[in-house]
Amino acid sequence: MNVFIIGLGLIGGSMAIDMKAANNDIKIIGFDADQNHMEEALALGFIDEKGVFEDVKNADVVIISIPVNVSIDVTPKVLDIVKDDTLVFDVGSTKVNICSVIENHPKRRNFLATHPIAGTEFSGPKAAIKGLYKDKTNIICEVEKTAFKLQERAFTIFNDLGMRIRYMEPKAHDRHIAYVSHLSHISSFMLGKTVIEKEKNERDIFDMAGSGFESTVRLAKSSPAMWSPIFEHNKENVIETLDEYITNLLRFKQLMEEDDFEAIYKEMAETNRIKEILKGISIKTS
Amino acid sequence: MNVFIIGLGLIGGSMAIDMKAANNDIKIIGFDADQNHMEEALALGFIDEKGVFEDVKNADVVIISIPVNVSIDVTPKVLDIVKDDTLVFDVGSTKVNICSVIENHPKRRNFLATHPIAGTEFSGPKAAIKGLYKDKTNIICEVEKTAFKLQERAFTIFNDLGMRIRYMEPKAHDRHIAYVSHLSHISSFMLGKTVIEKEKNERDIFDMAGSGFESTVRLAKSSPAMWSPIFEHNKENVIETLDEYITNLLRFKQLMEEDDFEAIYKEMAETNRIKEILKGISIKTS
Repeated sequence: MNVFIIGLGLIGGSMAIDMKAANNDIKIIGFDADQNHMEEALALGFIDEKGVFEDVKNADVVIISIPVNVSIDVTPKVLDIVKDDTLVFDVGSTKVNICSVIENHPKRRNFLATHPIAGTEFSGPKAAIKGLYKDKTNIICEVEKTAFKLQERAFTIFNDLGMRIRYMEPKAHDRHIAYVSHLSHISSFMLGKTVIEKEKNERDIFDMAGSGFESTVRLAKSSPAMWSPIFEHNKENVIETLDEYITNLLRFKQLMEEDDFEAIYKEMAETNRIKEILKGISIKTS
Repeated sequence: MNVFIIGLGLIGGSMAIDMKAANNDIKIIGFDADQNHMEEALALGFIDEKGVFEDVKNADVVIISIPVNVSIDVTPKVLDIVKDDTLVFDVGSTKVNICSVIENHPKRRNFLATHPIAGTEFSGPKAAIKGLYKDKTNIICEVEKTAFKLQERAFTIFNDLGMRIRYMEPKAHDRHIAYVSHLSHISSFMLGKTVIEKEKNERDIFDMAGSGFESTVRLAKSSPAMWSPIFEHNKENVIETLDEYITNLLRFKQLMEEDDFEAIYKEMAETNRIKEILKGISIKTS
């Protein structure tokens, strides 16, 4: 099987690692706008060859793992030149725009829209790791629009990676993912910004930071090149989540100003329910 | 050495576990307003006996590990009846009020104000773990107001626990800890609240949540009984950090509304510096 991966960072690279581990008869050609990334991927061994864009013509599977703003340009161009029986799938964190841009493409049935809920705060080929996708959820959108045989090929790959599948409409995906992923990134980035701004002249202050702070600002290490386009492509949903988050913070502040610490206790006690919800995630991912 | 611990939760319990491990000639008497906690602590074996409050009279060391609002009531009463050569220390997350309430106590020199930067999101005796304090920072306030011999006794204990010491004035402690700890807890609680509220009718949504969400809302599992008083006791500083955090979130939202994703990219790229800062924390705690 000839696999062509466009974008050799954490997501594409980690996929390559486990696809190679699961298949003997696989050849992975890697392509990245950044020449250094291609060299690194080759040196790390998760691609077999560096490719040029036109090599997609010979691929059985094309994986598009690049920022969502680039993906909406590149995906139609890939579909333009692939073989009739090539599977093309993307892995972007927003799904409405990509599904819309290829909606009427003659090769729409060659395409599958996916969003593997997996990642770390690191990026680039060196961030690629073994087992990233094991026991994680892969959200598939508009599955009925993909040719049945190519769905099967995709599910074999996702099965090799150890993923479980959930189906969702693109709009529902983008709305909900704004809450459970995109908002977390903004809350983390702005928390990091607030503390760095305040403490820029206080070098020793971070001695005071413990694992709680580390956990809460971890996502502020994420790649702006990946995340800025995600916020752009999911603008309306993200703004809605931000509005609600800010409203909750303003109410918390008001309760503090009114010395209503009973109400604050109650707010926190009610939110403690997140324990049960997170337990669900842990069981799922462990 | 007779040690009397008031408050047998995560913090007091974890201290008991490692103090027992480091010392053969130690007897730990435990006291907790919650009878069940005393039974649990005894069953878990980190206290040797259940005590009554008056047993502080016989203690060489008294550890006060209870919510900060209770601590400011209890600490003077402990100092009232301890022996002349007893060390009393608290471990609360705010330091101005406790230092102020015992400022003129005749036994001020028996008291040491400490804040070990360690913990988990869990609480109660069962949350107590071995090694919680290893390689963590303990912030000591107004060290010069404690009798030299009792400082020495305290540092022997903190050394047994594997902690490193930092000295700080209570006001500076409360101001900075608002940024690197208290604000993180509010951002996490309100994130949890926002998502739970929105998704209460969408049970499957948490299938979409990955490790990023889990990391960012982890602190929303924390104990309201511990945290509500902390916010109350550090009200002014916490409100200031909340103001700045909300301002940053509003600006981020405004940039999104203005479609200025270049500026958003820049904000995130600048905040990526948190990587270096967190690396400092990891080196410290690993």
